[in-house]
Amino acid sequence: MATAAETAAMRQAIALAARALGATSPNPVVGCVVLDATGTVVGEGYHQRAGGPHAEVHALRAAGEKARGGTAVVTLEPCNHTGRTGPCAQALLDAGIARVVHAVPDPTPTATGGAQRLRAAGVDVEQGLLEDEARAGNIAWLTAAKSGRPYVTWKYAATLDGRIAAADRSSRWITSPESRADVHRLRAESDAVVVGSGTQCADDPHLAVRGIDGAVQPLRVVVDTDGTAVTASSRVLDDAAPTLVAVAEDATTELAAAVRLPRATDGKGLDIPALLAELHARGVRSVLLEGGPTLAGAFVAAGAVDRVVGYLAPVLLGAGPTALADAGIGTIADALRLDITETVRIGPDLRITAAPAVPAASSPKER
Amino acid sequence: MATAAETAAMRQAIALAARALGATSPNPVVGCVVLDATGTVVGEGYHQRAGGPHAEVHALRAAGEKARGGTAVVTLEPCNHTGRTGPCAQALLDAGIARVVHAVPDPTPTATGGAQRLRAAGVDVEQGLLEDEARAGNIAWLTAAKSGRPYVTWKYAATLDGRIAAADRSSRWITSPESRADVHRLRAESDAVVVGSGTQCADDPHLAVRGIDGAVQPLRVVVDTDGTAVTASSRVLDDAAPTLVAVAEDATTELAAAVRLPRATDGKGLDIPALLAELHARGVRSVLLEGGPTLAGAFVAAGAVDRVVGYLAPVLLGAGPTALADAGIGTIADALRLDITETVRIGPDLRITAAPAVPAASSPKER
Repeated sequence: MATAAETAAMRQAIALAARALGATSPNPVVGCVVLDATGTVVGEGYHQRAGGPHAEVHALRAAGEKARGGTAVVTLEPCNHTGRTGPCAQALLDAGIARVVHAVPDPTPTATGGAQRLRAAGVDVEQGLLEDEARAGNIAWLTAAKSGRPYVTWKYAATLDGRIAAADRSSRWITSPESRADVHRLRAESDAVVVGSGTQCADDPHLAVRGIDGAVQPLRVVVDTDGTAVTASSRVLDDAAPTLVAVAEDATTELAAAVRLPRATDGKGLDIPALLAELHARGVRSVLLEGGPTLAGAFVAAGAVDRVVGYLAPVLLGAGPTALADAGIGTIADALRLDITETVRIGPDLRITAAPAVPAASSPKER
Repeated sequence: MATAAETAAMRQAIALAARALGATSPNPVVGCVVLDATGTVVGEGYHQRAGGPHAEVHALRAAGEKARGGTAVVTLEPCNHTGRTGPCAQALLDAGIARVVHAVPDPTPTATGGAQRLRAAGVDVEQGLLEDEARAGNIAWLTAAKSGRPYVTWKYAATLDGRIAAADRSSRWITSPESRADVHRLRAESDAVVVGSGTQCADDPHLAVRGIDGAVQPLRVVVDTDGTAVTASSRVLDDAAPTLVAVAEDATTELAAAVRLPRATDGKGLDIPALLAELHARGVRSVLLEGGPTLAGAFVAAGAVDRVVGYLAPVLLGAGPTALADAGIGTIADALRLDITETVRIGPDLRITAAPAVPAASSPKER
């Protein structure tokens, strides 16, 4: 059983891990708090960026000799492999840690076995403390580890009646400055931001993160199937962040940033699984899909939306393009059913977060 | 200054008044609590239905002789006119009430003057205690008294992407049983429920209140401009509730329930102000507009929506009719801006309540 001090330490470790969202891929976010033998916090750390020290190493360094005989509380099972850094399990043993409490087991084949190695060396290992919270904090990386493709958040901003622009396509501004600032936070937490050619042509968006100190810029991705939407003067081609333009194999393009991908089998746009595989191969574990309706529809049709974040403005239009189109759903029985996981007021707007509903067969009884 | 006992009594009076929402029109809802000279509650009452005793009379009857020298706490200024019942001001004087605390002044020319009469007779009268709460509880009647037309609540049920049905028009069910039950509560609180010919043809709705004990049935209104949507076998023509079918002056109809109204000047449907005037003349003070998109658009275009209640289901469709259409808004600058006043989870769904934004010039500084 974990102690109260360990539970408090795990909460802190989860908060520490969250600081690096968007900066660690292809690695997970991890936080670690070291307690001495009396339960006092003697070191804290988190994995700050891929290639840098793991959370445990930061925390052990901060603790120094006080770690000996103490407990390491960590959000993810310590790794047991040598990548760009040495195995954390060994570092914990070297520091004389007597007990390790981790929230989530490591699902990756190469990194796994940390708990086993620690136990074999006589360390008391406990798994599962605040596992749900820790899992939620690492949902993108855990989902990507399981599915082999990046975790996709579809973000949209719409009126109460579901419009993303007026009949004349004007849309500045439907949502508030507060909501637009919140979107920059979402971008900063993501490895890649994706738009389609419709949004590219209509808005010439910049897609970089603004207003967040120290944010790691996401990869800007434009799905420009026919290679006609992005031009040399497009704002996404500036040097504020890296950019990838995905075009069809048969498209004509002279852009250096272009990657060629197969078209979708229905002939509409690019093949979404191929796009996600390409991004995954480039280390992307979390994608923020920013639109527009056609591309969002293709992602929904491909079963490739893991989370929906809608910014709803208290505005009525009664005409204009809708947030989602062409998702391949013809009748109510085929609707994509979600669960609302959070609703928050953002200035005058409402942010609704939802995720695909867990199928009834595998959901807990009380749902 | 009101005492703590009087404030508590006003809260109770507001709660009592709310019990009769939908049952008192063309009268307001009113609650009254009588305290004796020591501040103890000795009588409670509320106006239960038009033609029945006013709230003060119920409360004074319950208090009996204990009212003498006591305080009457009432949500609305006591009336001073003889309608179907005698003036409440006189009843309070006859009972020997020494002090009257009311929340909201009576805005109607015929009923007004109660406070003046009481003061002239030596009663201590205080106005304004919990006025905002009391006003909110009587918003439909107060709005109607000011504008001369019923207070209109537009209710819709849609997916997160703003669809009210799938591409094939199937819509059973987008929202949950909990949301649908909540709509019956809204109906029970309304004097009339209004739909258009599109909804009439698509759904053959019943529109009566089900599942709420003691509910007064609203007037069912179908806006059937050409007189073709409602037929002798339509469910709205059963005897569960009264029904009015509004048709154009030049329409052909043999329905006994039909009333003839002018067409809108743009030729689309009926003239909304004329419809609302007709309903007001029939004693309707609150209207629940249940759709569909075209009729809702006409109400928005006419500036005749006072409140929006949206039931949002965590569902995505990507195709199908939208909640609102043809509202006469062509560009973002002309959008109807609202303030969200409440968001509540209803089962798996989200209920959002919003009202037209107060123009900046007349809004409080802190907004």
